[in-house]
Amino acid sequence: MKGLWLENNQLQLRTDIPIPEPPPGESLVRVLRAGICNTDLELLRGYYPYTGILGHEFVGVVEQGPQDLINRRVVGEINAACGHCRFCLSGQPTHCENRTVLGIVNRHGAFAEYLCLPINNLHLVPDDVSTEAATFTEPVAAALEIQQQVSLSANDRVLVVGDGKLGQLVAQTLALTGCDLLVVGRHQDKLAHLQSKGIKTGLADAVTERAFDISVECTGNPEGFATARRALRPRGTLVLKSTYAGLLSLDASSLVVDEITLIGSRCGPFTPALDLLATGQVDVEPLIQARYPLTEGLAAFAKAQTKGVLKVLLEIEE
Amino acid sequence: MKGLWLENNQLQLRTDIPIPEPPPGESLVRVLRAGICNTDLELLRGYYPYTGILGHEFVGVVEQGPQDLINRRVVGEINAACGHCRFCLSGQPTHCENRTVLGIVNRHGAFAEYLCLPINNLHLVPDDVSTEAATFTEPVAAALEIQQQVSLSANDRVLVVGDGKLGQLVAQTLALTGCDLLVVGRHQDKLAHLQSKGIKTGLADAVTERAFDISVECTGNPEGFATARRALRPRGTLVLKSTYAGLLSLDASSLVVDEITLIGSRCGPFTPALDLLATGQVDVEPLIQARYPLTEGLAAFAKAQTKGVLKVLLEIEE
Repeated sequence: MKGLWLENNQLQLRTDIPIPEPPPGESLVRVLRAGICNTDLELLRGYYPYTGILGHEFVGVVEQGPQDLINRRVVGEINAACGHCRFCLSGQPTHCENRTVLGIVNRHGAFAEYLCLPINNLHLVPDDVSTEAATFTEPVAAALEIQQQVSLSANDRVLVVGDGKLGQLVAQTLALTGCDLLVVGRHQDKLAHLQSKGIKTGLADAVTERAFDISVECTGNPEGFATARRALRPRGTLVLKSTYAGLLSLDASSLVVDEITLIGSRCGPFTPALDLLATGQVDVEPLIQARYPLTEGLAAFAKAQTKGVLKVLLEIEE
Repeated sequence: MKGLWLENNQLQLRTDIPIPEPPPGESLVRVLRAGICNTDLELLRGYYPYTGILGHEFVGVVEQGPQDLINRRVVGEINAACGHCRFCLSGQPTHCENRTVLGIVNRHGAFAEYLCLPINNLHLVPDDVSTEAATFTEPVAAALEIQQQVSLSANDRVLVVGDGKLGQLVAQTLALTGCDLLVVGRHQDKLAHLQSKGIKTGLADAVTERAFDISVECTGNPEGFATARRALRPRGTLVLKSTYAGLLSLDASSLVVDEITLIGSRCGPFTPALDLLATGQVDVEPLIQARYPLTEGLAAFAKAQTKGVLKVLLEIEE
């Protein structure tokens, strides 16, 4: 089969990859669509050593698996857990000590014609969610993880730093909580997406200092972190939603003096993410800026790496 | 009056300081004893710009103030709050936007014959607490702040990194929660203090990775931070209890992947601290390693800066 293969920080389109055979407990999924995420770009830059097929945001159709899933559209949680370590046993499978992660850690990903995932990881896509919209299930779930970790109320002043792919989804999901939300970024066109939904936006340089209860860093760069930090009141909470290449330098003393909480946030719950897509409460179509067939995957990556571009989709099967 | 005066990173014993006159709402306190804290040493190294009398851990006797406090022994909370900013109005006076801080920010400190503090900051020292023991009220309160911020249970595996002044008090207060506690440090003699109270101790290099629910960093150096970080399970909490000189570099991506919470922790509640000293549940006397008169304050600082030394007290009035 065809797939986008990463090896030694080089991405190549291979056509000689064997179709995988699902081990017991796993399904074979024929991939329909997949999305390119910043994590894919970071893996390409060598942020984490990985060799194999990239990709973890996808929609597919089950070809082998339980009867009730066959020929149905599915999305999949990306962490394949062992089921018996202390984290699995305590209900935290995304932190399984022995996990593989689709297209990220020791498991071939979604930028290919087929993938395998444990049956338990799969979620049926409701009929009223388009295949393109469902491709966003994983990042919408990741955005919802914030609300699993930090309790939010209508009185909370919340700042989202970053108007990119992740910031857009974080902003839309946070807006649903009714909190007092401001999103800052550097791109008027991207901020306009959010303004059209009634979300307040502004430019990063104009953030009021020490004015927010919660800030969410969605840029993955030190300037974004500095903005998120500067915006917080004492005893405020900074949610780290992006990964960072390299080390981040911070003024730890000021965290102590202001008793700031910093919290890292990763994968989130799929079921509410699909619900939000089904009801249209999160609107993802405007984020799609380009579509490429799998055979033009390298061009798709070049596009995704272009400054200011939001989501690029791979159309793996028409 | 005499006092230890910091100016341009130079400490000097001055004898020409006027006795302060308490403004309305403040008391004049004659200082009996004061303790040298790492923050004092960091101020001396220029960690924060400050000019004036150093010192914030003290016991004194009220000379001017409300009738019921006159001639009584008191300790004092170090943050003098404005009472009308949003933090004061929300019950967080230690984060007052307009605060002065005894011997740290815009308020002369305790290494002198007299100091002034707002009457509301003062707490009577119970008769069964010695003057020397009461000198530890402020750092014991700071240790108790951890329990105000993080809920602890008997099932929690908690690591304290650092066997110095702060680590000793943090360990003793955490032990009272019944949590599963380990304290690591580099000094067998200091760890022995804790072992004698039934607290498990070990060497920092031997900490099991990813094994603790909560770690408390009490060293103020990057190696201590690295130990505290390495020890945490995914979704664990790292309490930053020490201030750091300069910037701290950290792997922010690993905080995201492991969904770690980092929380800064500063000043804590005086009333329970005095209770613990009164009942002997926290034992501070073994931490006192030297006593100097105020006139030998520079020698006291030299001693406090000696590697491995715990608490040095200034005996300001016999």
